[in-house]
Amino acid sequence: MTGHVTLTHKELYQRVEAIFRKAGLNDPQSRALAKVIAAGERDACKSHGIYRIEGAMRTVKAGKVKPDAIPELLAADETAIVKVNARGGFANAAFELGLPELVARTRRLGLAALVINDCSHFSALWPEVEAVTGEGLAALVMCPSYATVAPAGGSRPLLGTNPFAFGWPRQNQFPYVFDFATSVAARGEIELHRRAGKPLPEGWALDASGKPTTEPEAALAGAMLTFGGHKGSAIGTMIELLAGIMIGDLTSPEVLDYLGTTTLAPFHGELIIAMSPQAFAAGRPGDPFSRAEVLFDAIVGQGARLPSQRRFAARARADAEGILLADAEIEQLDRLLSLGLDAVV
Amino acid sequence: MTGHVTLTHKELYQRVEAIFRKAGLNDPQSRALAKVIAAGERDACKSHGIYRIEGAMRTVKAGKVKPDAIPELLAADETAIVKVNARGGFANAAFELGLPELVARTRRLGLAALVINDCSHFSALWPEVEAVTGEGLAALVMCPSYATVAPAGGSRPLLGTNPFAFGWPRQNQFPYVFDFATSVAARGEIELHRRAGKPLPEGWALDASGKPTTEPEAALAGAMLTFGGHKGSAIGTMIELLAGIMIGDLTSPEVLDYLGTTTLAPFHGELIIAMSPQAFAAGRPGDPFSRAEVLFDAIVGQGARLPSQRRFAARARADAEGILLADAEIEQLDRLLSLGLDAVV
Repeated sequence: MTGHVTLTHKELYQRVEAIFRKAGLNDPQSRALAKVIAAGERDACKSHGIYRIEGAMRTVKAGKVKPDAIPELLAADETAIVKVNARGGFANAAFELGLPELVARTRRLGLAALVINDCSHFSALWPEVEAVTGEGLAALVMCPSYATVAPAGGSRPLLGTNPFAFGWPRQNQFPYVFDFATSVAARGEIELHRRAGKPLPEGWALDASGKPTTEPEAALAGAMLTFGGHKGSAIGTMIELLAGIMIGDLTSPEVLDYLGTTTLAPFHGELIIAMSPQAFAAGRPGDPFSRAEVLFDAIVGQGARLPSQRRFAARARADAEGILLADAEIEQLDRLLSLGLDAVV
Repeated sequence: MTGHVTLTHKELYQRVEAIFRKAGLNDPQSRALAKVIAAGERDACKSHGIYRIEGAMRTVKAGKVKPDAIPELLAADETAIVKVNARGGFANAAFELGLPELVARTRRLGLAALVINDCSHFSALWPEVEAVTGEGLAALVMCPSYATVAPAGGSRPLLGTNPFAFGWPRQNQFPYVFDFATSVAARGEIELHRRAGKPLPEGWALDASGKPTTEPEAALAGAMLTFGGHKGSAIGTMIELLAGIMIGDLTSPEVLDYLGTTTLAPFHGELIIAMSPQAFAAGRPGDPFSRAEVLFDAIVGQGARLPSQRRFAARARADAEGILLADAEIEQLDRLLSLGLDAVV
């Protein structure tokens, strides 16, 4: 039977940061990455926790991300658009650099956008959403990924799993946050069905000839489908347009051409739109934050869950009791720390 | 057999405008309404065409919209938020008043929002999306409606059918536009199933006790469901937050409380976010408009349709051949014109 080890959030963060330093990442890169990975593990969001370390390291080793990149905040102007060039590094460090300016402009103008260009991106979007809601602002965040999803009515991969995330600040509580793929399922879920030898639910995927399939192998060789049929497909396309083309960065098919694989972190851009509820609501009756609580109470009051509720429950547990890792996970962390980039192929 | 009459777009617009004038609407209200209704009919979008005239008139007669309202552009400031108070009139006239200022600020700041408050709203969102794309800008538009939709995992109506619309400008072509309800189906579609005595597809609705139902009667007494399960529910909730609460206007449950019925046009607010692809893409490689065409070609090239394609085909046909109305429809228009508000209950 496998044993477990309990770490504090800070201890886990430090271990992950040390691994990234050993792998050659500079200060801003290793800190920003360790932060989101420790946060994922703390929130029991295993698919975005320590599991992601190797993927990030593989991307470094393949030369598809610059481990020593220093992101650059482009000359501030008077517009509502803040631009950060990640200079080939991970999106996370670029986001941290741009956040204060995004917040300042949103407070001044009521509405502003942060564009991140030339970045490698492998993390969930909710850490960025929560960084914005932590400032009392609402946030809408999106990015392309790689072409693995067919548009509704189509037959071949074109769109990415294109995550779409939103957050609304709440006082003395976790924010209202959703963050989901615009594909019906994540690629990892299809992989899990394959390993378990189970058929996929109907409507998840097409085979290589463009026909609906419930066979995981055929799906992995074909295309995933969007959530909600043509509506999800329209939103996935909107994300290619706004967070790929509009910001002058790669679309999902271009990312796949550039990388030649879906096993490395996608290289592209990201769009974050921040809004000030105080500025929008100014001069109108009612306080937007307390009115939002009435809506949330009505949702929860009829037995429905708010999105991220499970994740926040895990966070509260981790904050109180620490983060539980299996011995095998600890061994793997030790191995990554001692071998550095030699630990990955 | 019923005969048909062919009208030009302009002739239809003039007839509809005359009806609204007879019904007591002032200049900006009747012109703005006639414009969107003639556009809906021209696009073979029958659910938003002349069929809507009576609903608008009923709302006037019930005293739930001010037919002589003069919308007010609130004092321009230096922010990215343009506010128009519809002063109890229809959203359409308020939108027309605010559009030039929205466009000017988006050109200056790269990103801006138009908030419409205290308006009655019954039209599709695509006319507004297209007005923004006509200026070379991208647009994201949303508004609540009335509480007829249960949140995912819930049992009772709370959210509205909350439409979500987006547009991207294209040169010498119809724009890329989607505009859909975040409920799985429109209430009208459930009504059509009821009239036809047909069961609903699974997943459309709950009965009054919160259990899934395929019976149209039970669904109309219960709640509709969101598209795409919890993801559509999250988007529907986001629309309540941004286009209801954040802009200091009514949420869908508050609209229903205020009106006491779903047979009148909802009274609330609307949020339009405009973005300048040129400003966002400045300094980056590639032209965003021609890059978008590559994406659209790839979608159409694999046999998928772009959203609104059918509507645009109808528009091209109507522009070439005129708009075909059944004799019964013409008679109804004549009746509405001669009787005014006496024609509706």
